[in-house]
Amino acid sequence: MHILVLGAAGMVGRKLTERLLRDGRLGNNDITRMTLQDVVAPAKPANIGFPVETVTCDFAVPGAAEKLVADRPDVIFHLAAIVSGEAELDFDKGYRINLDGTRMLLDAIRVIGGGYKPRVVFTSSIAVFGAPFPDAIGDEFFHTPLLSYGTQKAIGELLLADYSRRGFMDGIGIRLPTICVRPGLPNKAASGFFSNILREPLAGKEAILPVSEDVRHWHASPRSAVGFLIHAATMDTATAGARRNLTMPGLSATVGEQLAALKRVAGDKVAARVKREPDAFIMGIVDGWPRNFDAKRAVKLGFTTAEKTFDDIIRIHIEDELGGKFVA
Amino acid sequence: MHILVLGAAGMVGRKLTERLLRDGRLGNNDITRMTLQDVVAPAKPANIGFPVETVTCDFAVPGAAEKLVADRPDVIFHLAAIVSGEAELDFDKGYRINLDGTRMLLDAIRVIGGGYKPRVVFTSSIAVFGAPFPDAIGDEFFHTPLLSYGTQKAIGELLLADYSRRGFMDGIGIRLPTICVRPGLPNKAASGFFSNILREPLAGKEAILPVSEDVRHWHASPRSAVGFLIHAATMDTATAGARRNLTMPGLSATVGEQLAALKRVAGDKVAARVKREPDAFIMGIVDGWPRNFDAKRAVKLGFTTAEKTFDDIIRIHIEDELGGKFVA
Repeated sequence: MHILVLGAAGMVGRKLTERLLRDGRLGNNDITRMTLQDVVAPAKPANIGFPVETVTCDFAVPGAAEKLVADRPDVIFHLAAIVSGEAELDFDKGYRINLDGTRMLLDAIRVIGGGYKPRVVFTSSIAVFGAPFPDAIGDEFFHTPLLSYGTQKAIGELLLADYSRRGFMDGIGIRLPTICVRPGLPNKAASGFFSNILREPLAGKEAILPVSEDVRHWHASPRSAVGFLIHAATMDTATAGARRNLTMPGLSATVGEQLAALKRVAGDKVAARVKREPDAFIMGIVDGWPRNFDAKRAVKLGFTTAEKTFDDIIRIHIEDELGGKFVA
Repeated sequence: MHILVLGAAGMVGRKLTERLLRDGRLGNNDITRMTLQDVVAPAKPANIGFPVETVTCDFAVPGAAEKLVADRPDVIFHLAAIVSGEAELDFDKGYRINLDGTRMLLDAIRVIGGGYKPRVVFTSSIAVFGAPFPDAIGDEFFHTPLLSYGTQKAIGELLLADYSRRGFMDGIGIRLPTICVRPGLPNKAASGFFSNILREPLAGKEAILPVSEDVRHWHASPRSAVGFLIHAATMDTATAGARRNLTMPGLSATVGEQLAALKRVAGDKVAARVKREPDAFIMGIVDGWPRNFDAKRAVKLGFTTAEKTFDDIIRIHIEDELGGKFVA
């Protein structure tokens, strides 16, 4: 089985790649080849028992997608995207990558024809939804994004479903919760602080909280996100019918609940490293974001989280990223 | 006020143009200029007290939209589209016109800048919804189109909302019910028979009914459709907030109820001109279509229908299209 990962150098892409390389298989199939693409060079893994190619390119320039799918990968993980804050600040770039890039990829798959019908796993986002919301957003709630990023993801979902319906590919779109705790350096996502306020204190550093503690949001660990992607790549898509895009399960928590979990898991001294500095721009964006979901359908279709509580989310970070230790 | 109509030679475009020319005004504003565009030459109206230009072009070729909006029309009615059946049969054409064309239009408006912010009225479709449905589809039901046409319209809605949110234009998208009774010759829309079974018998001709009488669908008269368009062009869009796309009110009726209304209004002999010839292709398409809506939000925002019953729909056709007479 040949697997192509677009956006392999991003946080989720790296985590997914590590897992696939470690497993050496996807579902019941041995992996025989992997292609890792990103606009910044993906890390070239060593000592793998099958060929792993890295491709550094902008996948949204004309012709790039054709090259990437020319060897007919069996499974394509499409994780490449301009994140929410950047897509809002740079209108053209967001539409070029998130809309045109996605469409060029799907069209490159389509025109191959001759029975080629890869599984395509697309990471959408809960940003397809826009306030006002019900208490918990159900599986049939409509898409009224309040950001260009969410608009572009919602369009990607529609294309994925139509191209799948027409038999050009076998797509599944998954709306990931905000990934928490996001490891590494902050990116331009407006949601970054949800992780900063946990990751930085655990590393002995101060973190800025730009919103109030009653802000509620929807979270899943990186471990859960990788699990969702693997399940989306291996599930029986017939069970999804024509409705190919799914809200993933997650945990709804307020910032106050996040910080309480941090105190319980790591102590008061760690939690005291969070500084309150309200930021009107961030608050304005976050105001329109979803807070809670009832992701019945994904659960029914076999998607499961790795965590039951926010304490688990923090423990997973300490286990997976910090070698079991934090700066007390 | 300068008004641009894209798709002016289509059925709804012609009806809208007739109404605007007759009124000589839109809301509180005198019309001072009109531009009528279509891929087939729009009729050139005579004896109008202001300049009316006709433009025959494919609006979806690069550069065409820029020319159409260069003189900064105040109101743009975007009715141009490849219909459902044709967009399903010709994948490339449907996406080129319905998606790329719409996006090029919105981008042409966007790049003018300098405070230019026209009212853009976009005709979307109930084909953005896909079965299975609740008994009546509410205003917050999600979009899972089962046709490429519906996919393209749903994408148009998302773009319209995002471009409006960002201040490039002031858009309103309206999901028209199936227009009934559609005058003139049949087009390639799979929904054509809903009108054929009324229009043809009233003209003394036989008509084919390709589905069973229990097929339920959602209808509005051409007179209502024009009323919706005028209201969308003149309403206070602040009342719609960020949710710029609306399901229009209509009448839910089965084919059996349509034929019963035809009998009541025109008699048994007229109704007997309908011949049953089941067509699996049409039935397959229609199976996934919406049957009934609860269009609360549009009603609250001032959209009203011209008819209360299906008998009214038939009478409106006889009044507006047949000079008050039919072939008994």
